[in-house]
Amino acid sequence: MKVVGIVAEYNPLHYGHLYHLRSARMVTGADCVVIVMSGNYTQRGEPAVVNKWARAEMALLAGADLVIELPVAYAMGSAEYFAFGAVRLLDSLGAVDFICFGSESGNIEGLKAIASILADEPEEYKILLKEQLSAGHSFPAARQRALSAYLRGKFGKDSLTRMMKSSNDILGVEYLKALLRLESSIQPLTINRVGSSYNSTELSAKFSSATSIRKILSVNQWKCAKKLIESSMPTESLSVLEREIELGRGPVFPALFGSAIISLIRRMSADELRSLPYMEAGLENRLKLAADKSGTYEELVNNITTRRYTATRVQRILFSLLIGLDSRKFEFFNSVGGPAYIRILGFNRTGRRLLSSIRGKTDLPIITKTADFKASDIPGVSEMLALESNATNQFVLGYENPYFRTSGSDFTHNVIYIDTSTKDK
Amino acid sequence: MKVVGIVAEYNPLHYGHLYHLRSARMVTGADCVVIVMSGNYTQRGEPAVVNKWARAEMALLAGADLVIELPVAYAMGSAEYFAFGAVRLLDSLGAVDFICFGSESGNIEGLKAIASILADEPEEYKILLKEQLSAGHSFPAARQRALSAYLRGKFGKDSLTRMMKSSNDILGVEYLKALLRLESSIQPLTINRVGSSYNSTELSAKFSSATSIRKILSVNQWKCAKKLIESSMPTESLSVLEREIELGRGPVFPALFGSAIISLIRRMSADELRSLPYMEAGLENRLKLAADKSGTYEELVNNITTRRYTATRVQRILFSLLIGLDSRKFEFFNSVGGPAYIRILGFNRTGRRLLSSIRGKTDLPIITKTADFKASDIPGVSEMLALESNATNQFVLGYENPYFRTSGSDFTHNVIYIDTSTKDK
Repeated sequence: MKVVGIVAEYNPLHYGHLYHLRSARMVTGADCVVIVMSGNYTQRGEPAVVNKWARAEMALLAGADLVIELPVAYAMGSAEYFAFGAVRLLDSLGAVDFICFGSESGNIEGLKAIASILADEPEEYKILLKEQLSAGHSFPAARQRALSAYLRGKFGKDSLTRMMKSSNDILGVEYLKALLRLESSIQPLTINRVGSSYNSTELSAKFSSATSIRKILSVNQWKCAKKLIESSMPTESLSVLEREIELGRGPVFPALFGSAIISLIRRMSADELRSLPYMEAGLENRLKLAADKSGTYEELVNNITTRRYTATRVQRILFSLLIGLDSRKFEFFNSVGGPAYIRILGFNRTGRRLLSSIRGKTDLPIITKTADFKASDIPGVSEMLALESNATNQFVLGYENPYFRTSGSDFTHNVIYIDTSTKDK
Repeated sequence: MKVVGIVAEYNPLHYGHLYHLRSARMVTGADCVVIVMSGNYTQRGEPAVVNKWARAEMALLAGADLVIELPVAYAMGSAEYFAFGAVRLLDSLGAVDFICFGSESGNIEGLKAIASILADEPEEYKILLKEQLSAGHSFPAARQRALSAYLRGKFGKDSLTRMMKSSNDILGVEYLKALLRLESSIQPLTINRVGSSYNSTELSAKFSSATSIRKILSVNQWKCAKKLIESSMPTESLSVLEREIELGRGPVFPALFGSAIISLIRRMSADELRSLPYMEAGLENRLKLAADKSGTYEELVNNITTRRYTATRVQRILFSLLIGLDSRKFEFFNSVGGPAYIRILGFNRTGRRLLSSIRGKTDLPIITKTADFKASDIPGVSEMLALESNATNQFVLGYENPYFRTSGSDFTHNVIYIDTSTKDK
């Protein structure tokens, strides 16, 4: 079986995602598409708009064959950790031939060149980077300048600049770095992104970004929001979203956790805050001060964010706090090599076939029943599952319907099975 | 100056309170009425419906001359701690002649007799109590039976039973015990309660309970609620309430803190929960289980409450958790003798006169500017103020208007001064 891997959040799944998924299958001629998907929290450090089960279902209905969860510490990680966690999972399957990721530049050779420099950090590059940093540039700016100098016009300066500034390309470089680091045999491919750019909040034609869809959901009642987004989402995906919203299990927005997070920070000492991931000396006081003067999540994030501390980083810190991820835990996860298991969220017949063909041969344990691994002695497994469960138990408090706010679903929810066959696609 | 003390919550201040305040002045012929009032949290363990400044203002407008804050650890305490804290404050003024409290029985001699038994615990009583406890009765039932046996019909059995079951009489006994314990010269007096009983949620005539007023506020928009409660509250008190609600600083209800509290308990270990006040072995697991299955504050309280663990006790535990009061802190406060300062919330001309006459002569420091005492080295002062401030910083997160959710008001808010004179009353 030829297998292609995709890393995604599907928050929620729209036509851009569908296009990417289908292109990945077509370009590689793969029989099986494996998605590594963020669980209930995403890379921008915030809760997803609907839970992971609904989003896994959207993925399967869009043609994915197997959906694997990216553990929350990596799903909420910086580009480097996010990409490493995802590539580690795909690699650990021992059956993935390709990884396809979106790219603004579409310049895979350029991205590879950058990745290999960043992975190896040759002396000359290091010196250039140091120079740029001591000249007072921020890290991303200094890195881009050092790379530019190091590569000496090998790629047009403009194209390089673009690569180091486009969110998909930045992530792409990290996927490539992770492949190098893991000495993976997975072949990387880029697929050009279509439609509006990642952060656009204006709906344009069929290809809206997930960000703009969430924005619409946040300011409109469902009936009205539906009309505004239905042209941007595949019908199946829209139906899942509608069902979740009607059940009162969404849309979940970070703002709903504002009071709980502000309350937490007000209760905590600066010392305790210092133990969170992505912190640095001094930031803990900024968090304390901001929590004291902020009344909402938005205010809180704004009051902490600076050019140095980006909003995404701040959001990661805030939700790490909420779910109970501290830097000690995060370091432990990294010390055991990243994701400690392959946790299946959903599959179809093809996905099941892939799973049976690799079972027992994978690098990491395959988990379909989490409860069986609650007390596993494989390093990192029980700890990572416990964190996942804590994260979910906080996530569900964002549901409108109190009935679904109960804890523990991570250990009781069944894997999603959808009887679709890739044959008809 | 003849001074009478009253212990109150004014949550919110209604005609029953006004009647009590005026009766206290009249019966004692006092020139000055001092109120010891709960701050932002009350004896049922929950946040007050509007903040302490608004309620102090209501008190002054109703004819109080001086309003002193009962520190939160005592304001949220069981009857014994609540009463002790309040009486300690009145006693520490060194100028209070009377304490007037509401009573269902109006039988001050009976209450005194009970208080002295409970304070001294004579051998014979202890034996009787032990017998009743080992017969399997709950503590309150056993206590009542033991008292009944000990007093052997000195007061009618019915009257005794009534006394030990009525909330005001129970509190009254505790005031009397505290007076004994402190060897205070303050003279206790009871004033019969009028109108509906404490927990009634049905509005009847002019004398509604604060509980029923809050209930109305919780299920109606202000416009409608106002019509239902205006006959039960003095106009001035109603205006203050209206202003607070229109500003978005209320009504504050415990349910608003449900998510934050459930989130907290889900994040905490049973061990951490064990360190809260009013806990006992095993209850921590009950809290954990309840937080896992509850989606709202109401569900949470119901899921924890049993005959053994009363709702009030549960509420005290939950909000102690939220504000950061643990048993270590509480024991420390008790070890320094209870309330460590006399914190003024408000006064009028008469109150100010009383204050100047006692300044420098009181047992405890008089605080009008809390910021000056932030780093006080008087045992308990800075710690108690810090807790008070933390409690307020959580309380304000219940405001509808985010603008007022900022921290720190406990160290910046001015004492309320209202230029009324008791002469015209």
